[in-house]
Amino acid sequence: MKHLSRATQGLTGQSMFQLLARVQELQRQGRDIVRFEIGDSSVPAHPHIIEATKRALDAGQVRYTNSQGILELRETVCAFTEKTLGFRPTPEQVMIMPANAIVDAVVRCTVDPGEDVIAPDPGFVTYQAVLNYTGIRKVPVVQREEGGRFRIDPREVEAAVTEKTRLIINNSPNNPTGMAMDAKDVEGVYRVAERHDLYLLSDEIYSRLSYDKPHASPGVFDRCRERTIILNGFSKGYCMSGWRLGYAIGPVDVIKKMALLLETIYSCLPPFIQYAGIAALTEHQELIDGYAQSCKHLRDVIVQELNALPGVRCPLPEGAIYAFPNIAGTGMTSPEFCERMLEAGVAVLPGGGFGAAGEGYVRLCFARPEETIREGCARMRASVERR
Amino acid sequence: MKHLSRATQGLTGQSMFQLLARVQELQRQGRDIVRFEIGDSSVPAHPHIIEATKRALDAGQVRYTNSQGILELRETVCAFTEKTLGFRPTPEQVMIMPANAIVDAVVRCTVDPGEDVIAPDPGFVTYQAVLNYTGIRKVPVVQREEGGRFRIDPREVEAAVTEKTRLIINNSPNNPTGMAMDAKDVEGVYRVAERHDLYLLSDEIYSRLSYDKPHASPGVFDRCRERTIILNGFSKGYCMSGWRLGYAIGPVDVIKKMALLLETIYSCLPPFIQYAGIAALTEHQELIDGYAQSCKHLRDVIVQELNALPGVRCPLPEGAIYAFPNIAGTGMTSPEFCERMLEAGVAVLPGGGFGAAGEGYVRLCFARPEETIREGCARMRASVERR
Repeated sequence: MKHLSRATQGLTGQSMFQLLARVQELQRQGRDIVRFEIGDSSVPAHPHIIEATKRALDAGQVRYTNSQGILELRETVCAFTEKTLGFRPTPEQVMIMPANAIVDAVVRCTVDPGEDVIAPDPGFVTYQAVLNYTGIRKVPVVQREEGGRFRIDPREVEAAVTEKTRLIINNSPNNPTGMAMDAKDVEGVYRVAERHDLYLLSDEIYSRLSYDKPHASPGVFDRCRERTIILNGFSKGYCMSGWRLGYAIGPVDVIKKMALLLETIYSCLPPFIQYAGIAALTEHQELIDGYAQSCKHLRDVIVQELNALPGVRCPLPEGAIYAFPNIAGTGMTSPEFCERMLEAGVAVLPGGGFGAAGEGYVRLCFARPEETIREGCARMRASVERR
Repeated sequence: MKHLSRATQGLTGQSMFQLLARVQELQRQGRDIVRFEIGDSSVPAHPHIIEATKRALDAGQVRYTNSQGILELRETVCAFTEKTLGFRPTPEQVMIMPANAIVDAVVRCTVDPGEDVIAPDPGFVTYQAVLNYTGIRKVPVVQREEGGRFRIDPREVEAAVTEKTRLIINNSPNNPTGMAMDAKDVEGVYRVAERHDLYLLSDEIYSRLSYDKPHASPGVFDRCRERTIILNGFSKGYCMSGWRLGYAIGPVDVIKKMALLLETIYSCLPPFIQYAGIAALTEHQELIDGYAQSCKHLRDVIVQELNALPGVRCPLPEGAIYAFPNIAGTGMTSPEFCERMLEAGVAVLPGGGFGAAGEGYVRLCFARPEETIREGCARMRASVERR
């Protein structure tokens, strides 16, 4: 008798997408809503990226191609990694995939059901979603406020290691907290992975959006040859969310297995999309850097605005595009706060959706025009003060 | 200690891709090779498809979108299905995904490790590859030559049902044999699925390439509401292999679970790619039909040429873009035959790569210019006769 499979029964919707649908429905009804909920930039893709995509379409880059990604893009990633992190991987170490899909592929290629993965709490929802549906246990390491910033202590990562641990997921700059780890903490986490001989997935999707210090990667310690798998991509720093393009750099055996998985499921990625990635890494870097500069300014604006709200305390996000203020002082839970803000015409996400340690916080994406941020915060202030 | 996961140890490369790499290497060395091996058309994508993609890029269709696919494309699929198959599914029954990925998603959403899936032998390599890596058993149903054509007998499908069967995969028109099933055999397979209450994945990717009779789908019996999941897409009939775009039509609970899987792994597909799908289904249908007409002519050419080879007998492919001749009369095994043809400057695939019943056959893709087909077959004839 037919029935849905048990193997993937852990597939559960992400609350973010449910809120998204609700906000869109309210907008259809004519409600004016300031949208801080979705982690996408309001800046459109840079014109040279659009042009590069169209150029590749015109040049006939529209057929099946290498499952691991076109060689030109993999070589471009190698050169870019050398320029930014100081070591040059080989093209065999590079896999082209949507960045989100790299989480799924790395987990499925290195961890078995019943084993453990260490991941930040709060943390990016895809980590939890992938571990849920694959039957793998997430062992959380809490991000704690320390000196007005979030921090993950490598000693807590080490304390989370069990006999069943196969993989540590690190994410700096961080979604949802904006934490950007110091180089010494990044090395600390790498050394934990090394001591216990674990894989280390370093999600660096926000690497070009580190505002107060250089971005630090654990890949420098093993040149991604032993255990580090760097995840990076184009949705965030390059405003290319609609391209669904990213890359992994890792040990050849892991990358080879990921390429087999992609070959089996997808055959390959569209080549014209991959050419847009080459343009993103090589052309008009002043635009990419300029976008990061503008995000830093918007970060300053939103932190100031949020800290001016009664009962709200906002740690400094040193990277990424999210503020993650503590709203416990308002006397509301995170879901209550979000519900109330939505009534006031502002969409924000409850922190508990990112893990138990996120309760008491909410997430706001600040990659928005400055006037939108100010308007949204003014509505929030009016609502909180009315209470 | 880190090690690659056991859960996905069944991931194995497809021999087709290995041959592909070898052919490309020979071409780099300057060898002139007629390439019948890859299942991609030599006709470029129609210009209006390219233009539709570029138009969507210019219109800003470059951000995150609905995980299930943009509503406009899903509604277009509903209207197209009504026009071609005579029933109109709801947009909730439609999921936009790369067609190849639909095989993986349907299997993982409806079948558990240790259970059985019935699939044709010979059959499309992705079926076997997905079942291998998910730990699900393939129960083959042999395609047999009957009256100069291939056929799958519904009684043999019924005989293959076990207590562990959850899903039947049907594929007409067929890769690699070109079999296009009669309406009564399609109904026969549907009734087997109905009697045993099984899901039925109907891979109809070649539905627009049925040369001698109208394409028949089992979706008409349950309107894809109970058990039938239609797989279709744009790579074959529309010459859009590089877009990686397809769609599934099925029962709402299955589609919903597939959308959750895509949301978890990929978030969504690029919207500008989805707009190309709308153009493919609605604009310049005379070009799409003209392509099918030209493929029918090429089918006639290659069958005649192949039947003229000593020791070769080619059943009539009534659909798809493949000839699957029996070469046993040459005294060679399929791998020997392919090796010898490659020496003669012609790349063809050994039938055994498509399943045990494919041994003694080879696959040639005839979506090539007529002169290429004649030149390739002339080389094959010279080689076979020299022997």
